[in-house]
Amino acid sequence: MTSSIINALATTEALSGIFSDGSVVQALLDVEAALARAQSALGVIPPGAGAAITRAAVADAIDVHAIARDARSSATIVVPLVAALTARVEVVDPEAAGVVHWGATSQDIADTAMSLLIDRACAAMARDAAALAASLRDLSDRHADTVMVGRTLLQPAPPITFGLKAAGWLAGVRRSWSRVEQARGEAVRVQLGGASGTLAALGDRGPDVAAALARELGLAPGDDAPWHTSRDRLAALIAACAIVAGMLGKIARDVSLLMQFEVGEAREVGGGSSAMPHKQNPSGCARTLAAAARLPGLAATMLAGLVQEHERAVGALQAEWPVIAEALQATGAALEAMRDVIDGLAVDPARMRANLDATRGAIFAERVVMIAAPVLGRSVAHQLLKEALARAQASGQSLADIVRAIPELSRVVDAEALRTLDDPRAYLGAAETLRRRLLASVDEPDAADPPIARR
Amino acid sequence: MTSSIINALATTEALSGIFSDGSVVQALLDVEAALARAQSALGVIPPGAGAAITRAAVADAIDVHAIARDARSSATIVVPLVAALTARVEVVDPEAAGVVHWGATSQDIADTAMSLLIDRACAAMARDAAALAASLRDLSDRHADTVMVGRTLLQPAPPITFGLKAAGWLAGVRRSWSRVEQARGEAVRVQLGGASGTLAALGDRGPDVAAALARELGLAPGDDAPWHTSRDRLAALIAACAIVAGMLGKIARDVSLLMQFEVGEAREVGGGSSAMPHKQNPSGCARTLAAAARLPGLAATMLAGLVQEHERAVGALQAEWPVIAEALQATGAALEAMRDVIDGLAVDPARMRANLDATRGAIFAERVVMIAAPVLGRSVAHQLLKEALARAQASGQSLADIVRAIPELSRVVDAEALRTLDDPRAYLGAAETLRRRLLASVDEPDAADPPIARR
Amino acid sequence: MTSSIINALATTEALSGIFSDGSVVQALLDVEAALARAQSALGVIPPGAGAAITRAAVADAIDVHAIARDARSSATIVVPLVAALTARVEVVDPEAAGVVHWGATSQDIADTAMSLLIDRACAAMARDAAALAASLRDLSDRHADTVMVGRTLLQPAPPITFGLKAAGWLAGVRRSWSRVEQARGEAVRVQLGGASGTLAALGDRGPDVAAALARELGLAPGDDAPWHTSRDRLAALIAACAIVAGMLGKIARDVSLLMQFEVGEAREVGGGSSAMPHKQNPSGCARTLAAAARLPGLAATMLAGLVQEHERAVGALQAEWPVIAEALQATGAALEAMRDVIDGLAVDPARMRANLDATRGAIFAERVVMIAAPVLGRSVAHQLLKEALARAQASGQSLADIVRAIPELSRVVDAEALRTLDDPRAYLGAAETLRRRLLASVDEPDAADPPIARR
Amino acid sequence: MTSSIINALATTEALSGIFSDGSVVQALLDVEAALARAQSALGVIPPGAGAAITRAAVADAIDVHAIARDARSSATIVVPLVAALTARVEVVDPEAAGVVHWGATSQDIADTAMSLLIDRACAAMARDAAALAASLRDLSDRHADTVMVGRTLLQPAPPITFGLKAAGWLAGVRRSWSRVEQARGEAVRVQLGGASGTLAALGDRGPDVAAALARELGLAPGDDAPWHTSRDRLAALIAACAIVAGMLGKIARDVSLLMQFEVGEAREVGGGSSAMPHKQNPSGCARTLAAAARLPGLAATMLAGLVQEHERAVGALQAEWPVIAEALQATGAALEAMRDVIDGLAVDPARMRANLDATRGAIFAERVVMIAAPVLGRSVAHQLLKEALARAQASGQSLADIVRAIPELSRVVDAEALRTLDDPRAYLGAAETLRRRLLASVDEPDAADPPIARR
Repeated sequence: MTSSIINALATTEALSGIFSDGSVVQALLDVEAALARAQSALGVIPPGAGAAITRAAVADAIDVHAIARDARSSATIVVPLVAALTARVEVVDPEAAGVVHWGATSQDIADTAMSLLIDRACAAMARDAAALAASLRDLSDRHADTVMVGRTLLQPAPPITFGLKAAGWLAGVRRSWSRVEQARGEAVRVQLGGASGTLAALGDRGPDVAAALARELGLAPGDDAPWHTSRDRLAALIAACAIVAGMLGKIARDVSLLMQFEVGEAREVGGGSSAMPHKQNPSGCARTLAAAARLPGLAATMLAGLVQEHERAVGALQAEWPVIAEALQATGAALEAMRDVIDGLAVDPARMRANLDATRGAIFAERVVMIAAPVLGRSVAHQLLKEALARAQASGQSLADIVRAIPELSRVVDAEALRTLDDPRAYLGAAETLRRRLLASVDEPDAADPPIARR
Repeated sequence: MTSSIINALATTEALSGIFSDGSVVQALLDVEAALARAQSALGVIPPGAGAAITRAAVADAIDVHAIARDARSSATIVVPLVAALTARVEVVDPEAAGVVHWGATSQDIADTAMSLLIDRACAAMARDAAALAASLRDLSDRHADTVMVGRTLLQPAPPITFGLKAAGWLAGVRRSWSRVEQARGEAVRVQLGGASGTLAALGDRGPDVAAALARELGLAPGDDAPWHTSRDRLAALIAACAIVAGMLGKIARDVSLLMQFEVGEAREVGGGSSAMPHKQNPSGCARTLAAAARLPGLAATMLAGLVQEHERAVGALQAEWPVIAEALQATGAALEAMRDVIDGLAVDPARMRANLDATRGAIFAERVVMIAAPVLGRSVAHQLLKEALARAQASGQSLADIVRAIPELSRVVDAEALRTLDDPRAYLGAAETLRRRLLASVDEPDAADPPIARR
Repeated sequence: MTSSIINALATTEALSGIFSDGSVVQALLDVEAALARAQSALGVIPPGAGAAITRAAVADAIDVHAIARDARSSATIVVPLVAALTARVEVVDPEAAGVVHWGATSQDIADTAMSLLIDRACAAMARDAAALAASLRDLSDRHADTVMVGRTLLQPAPPITFGLKAAGWLAGVRRSWSRVEQARGEAVRVQLGGASGTLAALGDRGPDVAAALARELGLAPGDDAPWHTSRDRLAALIAACAIVAGMLGKIARDVSLLMQFEVGEAREVGGGSSAMPHKQNPSGCARTLAAAARLPGLAATMLAGLVQEHERAVGALQAEWPVIAEALQATGAALEAMRDVIDGLAVDPARMRANLDATRGAIFAERVVMIAAPVLGRSVAHQLLKEALARAQASGQSLADIVRAIPELSRVVDAEALRTLDDPRAYLGAAETLRRRLLASVDEPDAADPPIARR
Repeated sequence: MTSSIINALATTEALSGIFSDGSVVQALLDVEAALARAQSALGVIPPGAGAAITRAAVADAIDVHAIARDARSSATIVVPLVAALTARVEVVDPEAAGVVHWGATSQDIADTAMSLLIDRACAAMARDAAALAASLRDLSDRHADTVMVGRTLLQPAPPITFGLKAAGWLAGVRRSWSRVEQARGEAVRVQLGGASGTLAALGDRGPDVAAALARELGLAPGDDAPWHTSRDRLAALIAACAIVAGMLGKIARDVSLLMQFEVGEAREVGGGSSAMPHKQNPSGCARTLAAAARLPGLAATMLAGLVQEHERAVGALQAEWPVIAEALQATGAALEAMRDVIDGLAVDPARMRANLDATRGAIFAERVVMIAAPVLGRSVAHQLLKEALARAQASGQSLADIVRAIPELSRVVDAEALRTLDDPRAYLGAAETLRRRLLASVDEPDAADPPIARR
């Protein structure tokens, strides 16, 4: 167990609950109980066994530490857990005790329980994803007209609007989250294959039991076949989470850069220091970037783990659980953190404009070249602008004033352009068109979906 | 440049052609030419400029080594390439030379050219993916009745059919490849944003030029907005490739295990040794597993690279090209290799049966437990079977014979089961049902799709 | 918090204790207490404050859940922990409460506490590493003369001894572990830099306090400077752990392959199945391979995290703790698991010999070529051997018998070689020499070292 | 082959030469030739064969494209290369043709050739590493007294000196490079094991031949044993490269942040834009950060590849070559780029001071707290400072002026401190002491070492 202190920033209250000892053990027991009920209903095991096993399948009664310790010798948590459950059932219904875990293999239980946990985790994350998207859409609309410096390779470039930037953030988040939802829909499914994936122990009732188990748990019926060593759907889910974390990391990087004291264009609220009373730290961004830093390695582990031998793997399988649990929690932490960051983001349009003006028009040099080049030839125009920029830098004058003072240039630049050469609004191109397209390109976020397992 | 010797196993003839110097330079020039034609047609640049630039945009005329060297000072290949192209246009049409790369930024050209290359690479890979799927489907059908040992954690488990195993391979490949096609459809798109992504240099003609450029290149119109720092679609593509490589790696691992001398159930043809005349190596599996080993790291790099600053990134952007080129080539190498492996796979059903029989029925112990437990109680049944297995091992007799000789067991096992206790066909459960479901769960592979860029 | 159930296989009793809530909180408090004692001794804070703070610095008194929750707003666990500690000191010594965490920054405490935990974890792991090395050395010596098939690309190759194989395992483990010890010696160090890494808050007493803090904790004095954003030593440690896990994974892969039913040359004891009474699973190998699967991603995260901004990073820093804790625990789990596997490894020399004989001499074809080629020319020799191998395969005779029956070959192969052509001991080359060299190349494992922090 | 255009930023002239087709083929042929000469000298093959094979072992004569293509069927480049070499020897000395590649296995040649290439690459990189270290030392010395804002989480913190920052960069680079040199010393070694690693084909001459081969090539004698599946030394080398790239990435991140227009404290020279005449891009930083982005994935692949089966691996082995070649080239590109960046770094001490002053003393709030807290109690002091900071922010006055005007504070702050409260030099703590320690902690860089292979 890794300490909740060590993982504090890398999870949320909801997700740490879902992946807590009690919740995980209960999910495993829920699967055993559902299997028993399904089998009782189908007459595969005695009629009362399902109810008896369900009553015994209570996490509180389980010695988690002992289970974890004993799991190490069989390389699966399910062996000692089934033993513990059977012992509990034995007390009240010896016949039912004989049919605990009937016809199943350890991986059936573990995979199905993990499906339940994944589903709940995704439902919790979906709420933050929806709230974040709503905040971003609102942020973009509010700042549709807020001009700011564009920045490429961290250097000033022609102006953009903050609304366009926020729209790009939104579209990235929505596209990425919709990939998670698609992957969740495929990955959350029942697993029941028995020892070799043929359901042989259940005779000709195997597929019926699997379908009934799915119904009991509210899971997708697993309409194809057991997937003991076909882990592409899980890998796709974690890769999709990694993309979400990365796109959130992009927002967090942008915000933390805008929040620099020397830039000061936006800042998140909160985030103190243990040493410095004056500090306001990008704490939410830090948490988000920490998640974005971890997901690639976790996703790579899932991807490398696809190479699983024959009907059940040695090693690749046993590596999955911690990776999935950490990947979902870290992604959820990033969603929560950025939800709060964007929700409380303080934007300073005046500072944005001031930083823009501080370039003294250098970022409009491209505009003059585009106007002058067709007349003067591009190399001449480029050369004149380089000289103009040098004069502007040396004199502290604006590029516009310098251009107006250079006859070769002022002659070829039309009056309207000459007049607006300092005006960022005159050089926004299709910014607003593109902003609206980005907003239109992503669906309105749905109200957060209920878990698949409850549909 | 990394030597073609070093990369020999990690690509194919077709893909190494697509990512060769000549092809890459031509793709970049094609984008510049298409941009010029689009702008000429729209009246953004002089009418003849498009044609003049197109005529000059020929890769053969470019000094690739000089371009590569000069790229290092500007951190983009496009700056020296535009200079070289402009110099060539200058000779024949000085006016056109002034409008080369008009209103574009380096990343516009590089991203659009990479889209063209990705599209061609995916088209080439799609052919192998389709051929492999067809071979796997055929393999599964031919061996629908071929029984073999199931193997979990590399230990014998109840029987399966080779047809079921091959159906699982097929479904994994088809699901994974369809994710690549979906990601390709999203990732292959035109990029045109200009310096800051607002298309400001093109005034109010930016979106029209972008649409016309897309039409010229046969690319998706890029209907939302520039994606200079929204790289989720590229990351999703490479992650999808990594899943394909992983699922192919699973097949390769299985085949190389089946091909062990001591197992001998299937083998790929070819694969000599420089030292040992007797060797037949799993060369295609080795090449595939090598790709599966590399893709997770490449995908992780793309995922980590999503954190791109503001309107153009420092570092994360510049890391992408080699990663994409290697990821596609390695995935393509794995597809080609497994296509050949499966196409020529020699399967030995007799050896499969012999290996099954060699377990002397131990793998059917579960079956006896399932029959005896309801009568005797599971712990008694388990204990009896353990003793039976020990006697079988000690005596060399089959488990069936031992069971028949143990009254407590033979009494409770029905005659039919007693008779067929050695027969793997009597303990296949739903194997054939599941095989058919797997085949039905994946579409028939289409004839390989043409590149999006040519649709 | 990720459940101890989810992480069960990925840790050990000792390591899960070291990284438990109580232990982590106590380590953090120990650093605060040691800092206070050091400062009291130097007269930087009041003389009694060190003792008062030390008495209050007791993990049991801390509400871990509240600390974890509150950490999320400041992006550091230390801010709420210092608040909690201060509140406890306040009750008994208000003056001392004013100097808790005096002159330190959050990262100073977190890094130093992590050093303590790393050191303890390495000490625990060192015990298993030493025991494993001793077992491997013994295994190698016992099987110095045990011949077995060499296997390249999973195909039979000329014979080796199991002693040579085990010596290779040993050398790999010992070299890798010594890299961990070296990296531990560099990484385990005190951190004290204050807000910006200049120790400015401590005036001219900073270096003295840092040295005294190191002495209090028994840590290396940190003789250079604060390392807030110089994380190479930590990355080197985790990379070294990844190499250990990989080399253990190599052993585990080999053992699990040898343990296949069809091979049967060695097996680990234990490892049952929930479904199949007959199963003996390579459980320890599975646990080890799971660790080997996870470490590369964890190491990659540490490596990517080296890019830390200015005097304290946004994101890269906050990602480290879970990664380090998981990497050490997983590596430790692999060491424990392989210690047990090797300690209890059942080796079957007779089966090794039988598998060797089952190749009917094909693996000696190289030997005949080496003898015949100088006389007949290599291509003729190769061709003859290919024919001989085909005849052996078709007839079921041994290659030796076939060779003796082919005059072109039997004429050129000397009598001694002809006689011993079936004898693996006659074709072991330098196996024993190399085995001894490998054993000599690695030091005798020391008795497990005490933690640096206690030296 | 991946295009030199695609890899342009990710290599250097020297390294792309070392890993070019010609160089790689020649290295492979050099090993075959050296093996033959060693064997001729020892009488293992005819006396003239060594010379004959050496004369034929010329890369120019090899059809690289055919070799690469044919390698795909055997999964090793060496099989077709030996065939081509043998054909060339056949023409001039048929007897020698029979003993080409005598007693070796493909991996022997490939591994030894890769050792030669690694060694040359490290020697080339060492020159840049030494030059960079010298520049950094000089930079640190020149700016020992240059004050600047410390920045934690990208927010202003108490002052540091640029000399201290540069010293931290230097120490990180030197420590990291020395790990590469140590790993190189271990990894660069001869490989000669023959088919199974026992050197059986060479009878009792194997170790002598291996030693003679090492002497011929100027390589470490490989004093332990073949390392066909013990790849820890290679993984350690690439992990060490990843740490170098990461530490260079840290410098590059810092420089690119300092180079922001709004910060303007340092900038690299060069780096134009294709669209914007005014742009000066951090091109060298971009190239460096691109390398830092790729190395973690490449290192992870090497680490995951440690799990190599038995005496020669399926897949993990075949994945290594491209990974090693790219990792070394990308690391070398980062070294070259940062050498140039630091060599030409333009530092602006006045802007550093101006940015410091622009905080209006907020960064000294900690100093006042440290002085006031022992008298007033920390919580009172903290509260007063928060109010003072708010007043400073509202009024535009400096914190010093506000503090002087607040009696509760001015009373308890001594006159000297009150006077120097605006002076960053008065709050540098141990900055210069720590700077000197960092410089002393790393050796003077040696003149770049010659390749091991030439020693």
